[in-house]
Amino acid sequence: MNTAERLCLREVVCRALQEDWGSGDLTSSLTVPAERDLQGHIRAKSRGVLAGSAAVALAASCVERVRVSRPLPDGSELEPGCVVAELEGAAVELLAIERVILNILQHLSGVATLTRRYVDAIAGTRARIVDTRKTIPGLRLLQKYAVRVGGGYNHRFGLSDGILIKNNHITAAGGIRKAVEAARQKGPHTLLVEVECRTLDEVDEAIAAGAAAVLLDNMDVGTLRRAVERVAGRALTEASGGVNLETVRAIAETGVDLISVGALTHSAPAIDLHMVLEG
Amino acid sequence: MNTAERLCLREVVCRALQEDWGSGDLTSSLTVPAERDLQGHIRAKSRGVLAGSAAVALAASCVERVRVSRPLPDGSELEPGCVVAELEGAAVELLAIERVILNILQHLSGVATLTRRYVDAIAGTRARIVDTRKTIPGLRLLQKYAVRVGGGYNHRFGLSDGILIKNNHITAAGGIRKAVEAARQKGPHTLLVEVECRTLDEVDEAIAAGAAAVLLDNMDVGTLRRAVERVAGRALTEASGGVNLETVRAIAETGVDLISVGALTHSAPAIDLHMVLEG
Amino acid sequence: MNTAERLCLREVVCRALQEDWGSGDLTSSLTVPAERDLQGHIRAKSRGVLAGSAAVALAASCVERVRVSRPLPDGSELEPGCVVAELEGAAVELLAIERVILNILQHLSGVATLTRRYVDAIAGTRARIVDTRKTIPGLRLLQKYAVRVGGGYNHRFGLSDGILIKNNHITAAGGIRKAVEAARQKGPHTLLVEVECRTLDEVDEAIAAGAAAVLLDNMDVGTLRRAVERVAGRALTEASGGVNLETVRAIAETGVDLISVGALTHSAPAIDLHMVLEG
Amino acid sequence: MNTAERLCLREVVCRALQEDWGSGDLTSSLTVPAERDLQGHIRAKSRGVLAGSAAVALAASCVERVRVSRPLPDGSELEPGCVVAELEGAAVELLAIERVILNILQHLSGVATLTRRYVDAIAGTRARIVDTRKTIPGLRLLQKYAVRVGGGYNHRFGLSDGILIKNNHITAAGGIRKAVEAARQKGPHTLLVEVECRTLDEVDEAIAAGAAAVLLDNMDVGTLRRAVERVAGRALTEASGGVNLETVRAIAETGVDLISVGALTHSAPAIDLHMVLEG
Amino acid sequence: MNTAERLCLREVVCRALQEDWGSGDLTSSLTVPAERDLQGHIRAKSRGVLAGSAAVALAASCVERVRVSRPLPDGSELEPGCVVAELEGAAVELLAIERVILNILQHLSGVATLTRRYVDAIAGTRARIVDTRKTIPGLRLLQKYAVRVGGGYNHRFGLSDGILIKNNHITAAGGIRKAVEAARQKGPHTLLVEVECRTLDEVDEAIAAGAAAVLLDNMDVGTLRRAVERVAGRALTEASGGVNLETVRAIAETGVDLISVGALTHSAPAIDLHMVLEG
Amino acid sequence: MNTAERLCLREVVCRALQEDWGSGDLTSSLTVPAERDLQGHIRAKSRGVLAGSAAVALAASCVERVRVSRPLPDGSELEPGCVVAELEGAAVELLAIERVILNILQHLSGVATLTRRYVDAIAGTRARIVDTRKTIPGLRLLQKYAVRVGGGYNHRFGLSDGILIKNNHITAAGGIRKAVEAARQKGPHTLLVEVECRTLDEVDEAIAAGAAAVLLDNMDVGTLRRAVERVAGRALTEASGGVNLETVRAIAETGVDLISVGALTHSAPAIDLHMVLEG
Repeated sequence: MNTAERLCLREVVCRALQEDWGSGDLTSSLTVPAERDLQGHIRAKSRGVLAGSAAVALAASCVERVRVSRPLPDGSELEPGCVVAELEGAAVELLAIERVILNILQHLSGVATLTRRYVDAIAGTRARIVDTRKTIPGLRLLQKYAVRVGGGYNHRFGLSDGILIKNNHITAAGGIRKAVEAARQKGPHTLLVEVECRTLDEVDEAIAAGAAAVLLDNMDVGTLRRAVERVAGRALTEASGGVNLETVRAIAETGVDLISVGALTHSAPAIDLHMVLEG
Repeated sequence: MNTAERLCLREVVCRALQEDWGSGDLTSSLTVPAERDLQGHIRAKSRGVLAGSAAVALAASCVERVRVSRPLPDGSELEPGCVVAELEGAAVELLAIERVILNILQHLSGVATLTRRYVDAIAGTRARIVDTRKTIPGLRLLQKYAVRVGGGYNHRFGLSDGILIKNNHITAAGGIRKAVEAARQKGPHTLLVEVECRTLDEVDEAIAAGAAAVLLDNMDVGTLRRAVERVAGRALTEASGGVNLETVRAIAETGVDLISVGALTHSAPAIDLHMVLEG
Repeated sequence: MNTAERLCLREVVCRALQEDWGSGDLTSSLTVPAERDLQGHIRAKSRGVLAGSAAVALAASCVERVRVSRPLPDGSELEPGCVVAELEGAAVELLAIERVILNILQHLSGVATLTRRYVDAIAGTRARIVDTRKTIPGLRLLQKYAVRVGGGYNHRFGLSDGILIKNNHITAAGGIRKAVEAARQKGPHTLLVEVECRTLDEVDEAIAAGAAAVLLDNMDVGTLRRAVERVAGRALTEASGGVNLETVRAIAETGVDLISVGALTHSAPAIDLHMVLEG
Repeated sequence: MNTAERLCLREVVCRALQEDWGSGDLTSSLTVPAERDLQGHIRAKSRGVLAGSAAVALAASCVERVRVSRPLPDGSELEPGCVVAELEGAAVELLAIERVILNILQHLSGVATLTRRYVDAIAGTRARIVDTRKTIPGLRLLQKYAVRVGGGYNHRFGLSDGILIKNNHITAAGGIRKAVEAARQKGPHTLLVEVECRTLDEVDEAIAAGAAAVLLDNMDVGTLRRAVERVAGRALTEASGGVNLETVRAIAETGVDLISVGALTHSAPAIDLHMVLEG
Repeated sequence: MNTAERLCLREVVCRALQEDWGSGDLTSSLTVPAERDLQGHIRAKSRGVLAGSAAVALAASCVERVRVSRPLPDGSELEPGCVVAELEGAAVELLAIERVILNILQHLSGVATLTRRYVDAIAGTRARIVDTRKTIPGLRLLQKYAVRVGGGYNHRFGLSDGILIKNNHITAAGGIRKAVEAARQKGPHTLLVEVECRTLDEVDEAIAAGAAAVLLDNMDVGTLRRAVERVAGRALTEASGGVNLETVRAIAETGVDLISVGALTHSAPAIDLHMVLEG
Repeated sequence: MNTAERLCLREVVCRALQEDWGSGDLTSSLTVPAERDLQGHIRAKSRGVLAGSAAVALAASCVERVRVSRPLPDGSELEPGCVVAELEGAAVELLAIERVILNILQHLSGVATLTRRYVDAIAGTRARIVDTRKTIPGLRLLQKYAVRVGGGYNHRFGLSDGILIKNNHITAAGGIRKAVEAARQKGPHTLLVEVECRTLDEVDEAIAAGAAAVLLDNMDVGTLRRAVERVAGRALTEASGGVNLETVRAIAETGVDLISVGALTHSAPAIDLHMVLEG
């Protein structure tokens, strides 16, 4: 987790606590003595890959009197019953941060777990699983981190750190060649130019114009294979569209370099975890 | 959508645009003439229930020269191909807001769609589907709105607008009776007291202590039915745990008043939508 | 003070320091050597009930070199001359935080003190003193905390954690029955429905429609007593309007459950405190 | 109201709406049809001087469908029953902004009204009523604006726009002369140097050191008069401490230039106003 | 100016206005009648290239009653006396925004002007002038925009949109080869790898390891020429260090692709402009 | 550095780190092992006066594992090669904060260095060098601090802490006398009134109206001398316009009290510094 991701996680934890607290945790204030100290632990209830573990300590740092110990590192395999972290301190504070910690862990671990399944499904091929910009608003940085935890790779983070000429750009620009040439001429020299192609002809046109990567959009496996052959290493190839756990291996076996999967970040089911206090 | 939800949506749109833009939409700046105007529309690619439609106009209001027309209202049934909104204006701006609009619509419509499936599954029973606090950080208000769009009801929004005494509170408080009495004595008079119960004995104890609602946690259908009978209308009954589309109808038929479903907000798969510009 | 209140106090302290500092404490920078260390204490100059004591340490945490010791706990009775907290450290920093600390203490203690006077005035009756939404913008959470410090109870915090159907709602909804039924049918099950009534007939109508509490607005003591009798325990009764320290006991003796007092938060005079540095 | 005050008022309105709304105005959402339009007006219930009138339009600008007309200008004399502004539009939105508008108007008008009473009390003398830094956290700019509306004058806004050497500075600096000389030598040339004095000797010392104004702290009327005579126009004289509506005229008649009154901003009781919707 | 740059400019204008206003424009409030309307214009007093023109309208949008007309477009050549924009409206508001507008224009135009001088100095060569990360805190996006206005090109915006392995990375990584290979293997496929080299041997090593660009650091003109020859088109070449208006042409004539100039953003002198109101 | 300046520096450091990091420091993440610890130091590469030294520790406090030692104090004379601070800790974190630290130091030291040159140029005269409001947006507080570090004095910080009646105010107010009288009558008593004058007649008029300071705008040295003579100590005199390192001494020798120099903050060239890690 780099410094920017950590900063983002801190903000997400803080915003989520405010969202959950509103004017304060009424139930705990009313029922639990302020001075009562307890121990507890966070436990997985299903299998998966852990991501977001730093959220436990960050949430604890937002209250006065909670200590975290023995946090599992991100990337750990979760089994039902395994302990993710131990906590100790003021009971009212443990209760005030419980749900936010679980919500972050369950979501990011869900992303890492789904990614791992895709990565495992293509084991042995040369392809990489990459993410997309189809993310949950406000969580992109953390979701993309979780993709890496699961063994995937990051595509560009957003609109400013990669050049990807999509169909709508081609429509607006007036053709592939024109678009690629403009991008190569005026763009920052640190970035490659990638072009979305729907047909083999478009692939040819993109390569001819100097594209360094082609996004092969919604092609069937046969077409993908022909595209890879036709590109013949002159550019990176990325398959996109119609990718799921049933189809991903066949896609990988066409020889593409990259397979982008929107579901990693927009449809990953949560992992089940809970916190248990010891009486 | 009430005024607070609208304000929240505006902030989410704004934060998501900044997240996606970074230092700016390079591809469009490089390939599309600034003065080029185009028309486009947002179209569904799968079935579902629309939620978050106001995001289209809010995103457009963050740029200078995009107009939105004929937005479908929230709650509309989506079919593949149906048009969600029409947009017109500067091509570079349409491209700059495209992904954020889609990300919000695909997620909130996903929540509404999954809720509708649960609601449909229990049609004809007296039970209500309600949400939980198991939400995506930063999106709780909007996810809970989407639950209502899908026909569900909201449980408390957070820790300050409802009293729900859970197992961890009972552990920390030293027993159900003690916890319920404290809550009834000192809590705001506008709020009911609900208590999580794992056994029929706990249900008896909660009712005796004056609970106005009982959350029946992880009980099988037989136990649920007995719990409902034993409560006999003296308190609201809420079933929770082990709820999925296969089990929800049988649970509803036990006679419970409420069925809470975490999956509505933590695991709703996205609805597929896209934006198409017309050349 | 719960975690949300503490977070709010931190923000209020921080915002107030920026407001007071502007581009910096000129007088101290110009006249006091940066390395000079001093001791000081905060002392009450009038009687009252202390609230907001945590602000002293929070303000000290915003500078580099001030330590706080022996802070009096909230709820302490203040006498002229009694020491609220001791401070030690860089003189320029003590001077930079002095006014903000005093401004917070004098206001919140003012609210707690006024509340205590109302609570004392009804001692021995069954009524509770509750606050309202008539608060100073930006300080609601802290003012409501101070009300509890003074022995009062909180009414709902804002528009989302309680249902209170007032005259303007009834006008807009088209009648009491219609409004109450809508609220009971679609509202969250965790909330009671309270209705503002100006006459005994309205009380009857509200109770008949299923209101769980009635706000008896601006009724004289005789009418209040009849209203309490007519409700006969079927709903909570809240008296409101025309409440002051002269009238409150007679109102309490009518048998109402709650008496709401706007003045607690909109018109509490400040308690006098000062900080003294020792040369 | 200058541009900074207006910006501040906008922020205060916005923060107060979020504080009041929480997750949304439940009562109105549940009981009032979204499409219902109504007219209403804000009316005074007690006498006073209006301040903060711009808040009405600013709050309306935070919702979609409310129009404000015929707002009374700040400084207007309020009588019970007089209309402060008329509003028209969506009933749910009128209800969502009602309390925040009233809370701002009642507080700022309270400050203006109390100021006017002090100003009236010294009519015909040469003294000015000025405010202090004893303000409500977060509202200083607006409270000081309200003081001017009531006919008072502003003392420095905060620690950076005026040099006021108080007792604690003198303690920390090691004497009046040393403090005044340092301030005159290194301070910005745009600012005068004022010194707090508790005795006539301190007044002499301050004047000798070059103070341009002296704050005469907690002196009785006789001492004040002697201080004014001794200063003899070589510096401005400001009386402070023990000022109330009973004592202020006698203080003014001593010939001081300025009388500073903390109560204007820390203890002004609210003016009573309400909003009425027409059915 | 793309959407992100525009958003950034809006924030910079807003922050600068708050910085300048503090508690309000005293001089204007005191001396100018609130209702007085005037016309004015912003005029250049020295030669240069205009950048940041949109700030005029953005600042005007922060007040109530100022209209802007006939703004010169960014990139315009300024001559002493030429009118940059015309303004009309409330005199107090024109005075409140004057200095902030001028401060932004003078700085960004300074950057554009200095860039233009460098670009002109290498006219006819194949090299491009590019900027660096040596920017003024908080203004990077706008300064880099101004560089483009002046005819320069942007290097990476920050640490996340380009891979530039510098000496400190090589030290920390344990050698050029190791660093380049790690970056190529795990980095996003959308980014090239650039390596800072101080000697011709390092250039060889970087190229051999697969660098797509080499930053030739502080090499004299002769060494630069040999480096360009040795690279022979296999990678982009960027000269850096010791670049000024005297040396830049000779550097460009070595055949390098890019010349990065820190001074464009860290040391550009301001352009002189003023606003004149017409009486 | 006072508390407000320190707070501002913290915000500037934080904002600059976010600006530079974007989604994270890719190069370091890819090439440097997370656990690698290194030592480094910041070194000057040119002569000057250090300002902003506290930024080193503030930036280090934004990451987890960097310690700063032996920071040079602000005001230190820099020679090429002298060490400004030593750092030690995680290599990836040192690399993540390097550029931001350098950018702040190079700019603020640039301001202090240029100020020192002006101050040295007028050594032995009675004049003071003062700054202006011609600052870089968002950095005014820190630039004005750097001016003091360099031996200059601060003019007013912004529009609210000084009264300076400029030509545009006189135009809008309808004359010098009218403007000065209004300012003296209604302005805060803590502030002097300064008036911009372009001719000796205007100086006479300003003094007659009661101005406490006159800004002598763009007068040649002869006129300045006559103005100083004519004022004869009745007001402070400030020279402005056409001030540079060639002209400043002659201006100072006219006997003016203050010389304001916009270039200190709008055109100070950066000081060259770098960070070196030890392998």
